[in-house]
Amino acid sequence: VRLADLAERLGGVLIGDSEAVITGVAGIREASEGDLTFLASPRYAVYADQTKATAILVANGARGINKPVIQIDDPYAAFLEAAKLFRPVAEELRPGVHPTAVIGSGVRLGEGVSIGAQVVIESGAAVGDGTAIAALCYLGNGSRVGARGSIHAGVLIGERCILGDDVVVHAGTVIGSDGFGFAWNGQGHRKIPQVGAVVIEDDVEIGANCAIDRGTVGDTRVGRGSRLDNLVHVGHNVQVGEHSLLIAQVGIGGSTRIGKQVTLAGQVGIVGHVEIGDGTQIGAQAGVIHSVPPGSRVWGYPAMPLAQSKRVYASIKRTPQLLKQVRDLEQRLENLERSLGNGKPTSGGEAPTAERHGESEDD
Amino acid sequence: VRLADLAERLGGVLIGDSEAVITGVAGIREASEGDLTFLASPRYAVYADQTKATAILVANGARGINKPVIQIDDPYAAFLEAAKLFRPVAEELRPGVHPTAVIGSGVRLGEGVSIGAQVVIESGAAVGDGTAIAALCYLGNGSRVGARGSIHAGVLIGERCILGDDVVVHAGTVIGSDGFGFAWNGQGHRKIPQVGAVVIEDDVEIGANCAIDRGTVGDTRVGRGSRLDNLVHVGHNVQVGEHSLLIAQVGIGGSTRIGKQVTLAGQVGIVGHVEIGDGTQIGAQAGVIHSVPPGSRVWGYPAMPLAQSKRVYASIKRTPQLLKQVRDLEQRLENLERSLGNGKPTSGGEAPTAERHGESEDD
Amino acid sequence: VRLADLAERLGGVLIGDSEAVITGVAGIREASEGDLTFLASPRYAVYADQTKATAILVANGARGINKPVIQIDDPYAAFLEAAKLFRPVAEELRPGVHPTAVIGSGVRLGEGVSIGAQVVIESGAAVGDGTAIAALCYLGNGSRVGARGSIHAGVLIGERCILGDDVVVHAGTVIGSDGFGFAWNGQGHRKIPQVGAVVIEDDVEIGANCAIDRGTVGDTRVGRGSRLDNLVHVGHNVQVGEHSLLIAQVGIGGSTRIGKQVTLAGQVGIVGHVEIGDGTQIGAQAGVIHSVPPGSRVWGYPAMPLAQSKRVYASIKRTPQLLKQVRDLEQRLENLERSLGNGKPTSGGEAPTAERHGESEDD
Repeated sequence: VRLADLAERLGGVLIGDSEAVITGVAGIREASEGDLTFLASPRYAVYADQTKATAILVANGARGINKPVIQIDDPYAAFLEAAKLFRPVAEELRPGVHPTAVIGSGVRLGEGVSIGAQVVIESGAAVGDGTAIAALCYLGNGSRVGARGSIHAGVLIGERCILGDDVVVHAGTVIGSDGFGFAWNGQGHRKIPQVGAVVIEDDVEIGANCAIDRGTVGDTRVGRGSRLDNLVHVGHNVQVGEHSLLIAQVGIGGSTRIGKQVTLAGQVGIVGHVEIGDGTQIGAQAGVIHSVPPGSRVWGYPAMPLAQSKRVYASIKRTPQLLKQVRDLEQRLENLERSLGNGKPTSGGEAPTAERHGESEDD
Repeated sequence: VRLADLAERLGGVLIGDSEAVITGVAGIREASEGDLTFLASPRYAVYADQTKATAILVANGARGINKPVIQIDDPYAAFLEAAKLFRPVAEELRPGVHPTAVIGSGVRLGEGVSIGAQVVIESGAAVGDGTAIAALCYLGNGSRVGARGSIHAGVLIGERCILGDDVVVHAGTVIGSDGFGFAWNGQGHRKIPQVGAVVIEDDVEIGANCAIDRGTVGDTRVGRGSRLDNLVHVGHNVQVGEHSLLIAQVGIGGSTRIGKQVTLAGQVGIVGHVEIGDGTQIGAQAGVIHSVPPGSRVWGYPAMPLAQSKRVYASIKRTPQLLKQVRDLEQRLENLERSLGNGKPTSGGEAPTAERHGESEDD
Repeated sequence: VRLADLAERLGGVLIGDSEAVITGVAGIREASEGDLTFLASPRYAVYADQTKATAILVANGARGINKPVIQIDDPYAAFLEAAKLFRPVAEELRPGVHPTAVIGSGVRLGEGVSIGAQVVIESGAAVGDGTAIAALCYLGNGSRVGARGSIHAGVLIGERCILGDDVVVHAGTVIGSDGFGFAWNGQGHRKIPQVGAVVIEDDVEIGANCAIDRGTVGDTRVGRGSRLDNLVHVGHNVQVGEHSLLIAQVGIGGSTRIGKQVTLAGQVGIVGHVEIGDGTQIGAQAGVIHSVPPGSRVWGYPAMPLAQSKRVYASIKRTPQLLKQVRDLEQRLENLERSLGNGKPTSGGEAPTAERHGESEDD
């Protein structure tokens, strides 16, 4: 699409090369050549200089950007509009209840709701205005999904779980499985009934094939605006704060509290019963076994402050060499002590020998 | 709920503060203030002193506990009863087969069985007395689920797989997918047919969105009383012993044998074809690449004995400093050797230099 | 089964012990006693000496194998035939569309297609000749599955995603969930529309409960002949080359390119926007944060060349001892310096002390 044509179609004012060709859309930090991106806040203007995007949607009056821009009232709304141009087939929207759906007694369905084929909604459940429940979903007894939600195919929501407004859940995700609560009684692991629920607050998006357990008593909660990627595990009674990001395959042990605007990178594991402070960023695959104060940046197995972990992981690469250096130092020192003929080397030399014996149990 | 009222309702004898307020239930080690817990065996009396629970259900005649207790015939049964009080909505039980369920030829359904909406049961399958198969489940040809089971929504069980009595499987779990067996023939990875099955023994509970592969030939097996958390992967021909615990996101490679009463903490990975001895405990995210003898406690990447791994992970934090210390030692020793004017330092000093060159390939 | 009987049934020529008993089938490297295996190419003859299999299917004229062999025209075809003998119940094949399946407008179904119970196929989708779509699957608008495919129960394929010929997808897997693309605008993580699709090329097999995201713009792609195990995460715009193996619970960040014939062992994590060269092998649980050149063998957290990582992980076990050795060396050197009465020890000794203070921030 020619940039000038795009500007016209979106109703914005183009400043810059009208012949530039746009082939896609992307976020400002991920954009490549040919992409259109957007700048929603002047606070993020620094990214406008760094982005590889070909053009940027900006607010009316935005200045000082050294790239083609389209000035427009609402850059993000225009960006969503532009994205549709690159989607080859329009999604079918079918308000109404598919005849194969099974709807229990006392189920409340809002206006404009779309219930797909083979869906099962148990009695007492409720679906808010404008929400789409795709094919093959399950909503348990008394569960509730708010307005304007998008619940993709095959999502399984257990009894009494509550999803707020504007929630997106991708295919295959389970919300409200029992928490992992058992007590050994000498003969077996006896089940601790899991009678709590899950609360997903407004404007949360959850990826595919995740598993979010209900609380033992009380609720597991994912805070407003948070985003979960695919295959994420959230244990019972976990509390995730607002606007946090849990990247793919993250696992969070029971009763752990994740603060606001926390980022957990891919495959991070966090034990149960700890607290991750607001604004914390945890690097990929880190293993967190203690609470972490607000604003931390941590990484490693087990997790440490990020700066330290970088030093540690750089330096452990030198341990094979270090072992040789220390062995060499010991030899040279012993030679020196011997050549000076004083009694100390003997006693001084014994200690490490003894310790070396102790070390052998480590191997 | 007032503790005195709770004791009366459960039919037990209250010893202690009748005005205490109970707000939930929990296992004795996880309980917080306000919780009711239970003590099933005097062997676990030590936890009665440590628990934060407000009151404890104990056997008649149990003594020496410094907390409010309710004495009762069967503390665990009473605990399950009490748990129901904190569940706001009762689960609907619907014996019978939902009209939308598709039941193949020759399927045997026991007494009191509940088959949910949109369920598909292929020919030759069997479901035992009192078992509930929730909505949207799939039971393949010739598969069998025992008595008193609870198979949650969207569980997918492959052909010929066998689940024992009193088995619970949470939503979205797959039992009986093909094992990952391929042989490279120079042009491609050709499939090794996976013709075995999966056997889940009695009293097993499996979490949400797990994947348990069938055996290549012979069976993959999960032993009686074991518990799997969410998103666990069990490879083909794996054998899990009795009463073992596999916490969330654990992955077990093909043909590995897990003993009895083993605990694998979250995100543990175990390679194929190894043996994990009875009673072993493996710490979170550990990577196990060798067999482990019975009664081991291991942790780390790769896994080591726990005590060793704790020392190692504490000490590697000091390697950045250690590098400086050793560099300083080398300098001081060289100065000393030089000041003593003997020939040794030159030759002694060369070796580490050469080795330092060698080290550069490591970086 | 007696080996002589098996040879007769398969129509091959037995050379060796006709009384040997075959109890199963397996790949040549995984086979145990009692197994029949196959040798498809003389290039892999080396495995014939190492295998524990009881007998080997080989091409006519194959010589020099020190084991019972069955000579036959097509050893792999015969192997597949033999495997059926060990499958107790034959799978039911039901060409045709189950009456409970919901088929949208304009859906094209090839010849001999089997569509299972409760399946939902949206408008504009297509299924190729001879493909089986098992019960409870979902095919979104405009999605396409090629010929001779096997899509197991509960697989969820999003709109416009394309699967080639001879593709196998195991139960519960999601193809075409939205990529994890958000941009922080100061108030929330605003969604970057994910308008691309997923392309699965010919002859790919994908395990159970995986999640493969659609591209932001453009496609996520899994190359011909590749194999994915269970619970694998593939981020948006990832490109997986031909004949690669992704073992269970692997996670790949967005826009990363995996080359041809790459092996990613279990639980490997790879960050986004890197490139993994052809033929690379990455060890279990490795964390890859940089691009890797073709033919690499890497392992570790973070990942390093395999040979280096083995040395590093062996040597870090010695760091607890190393700390003591260095402390001892420092003491002995200080004693020596002191006994020699020169001024250097004082200044030389101070530096490490100061550094030791610095180190305390690391703990």
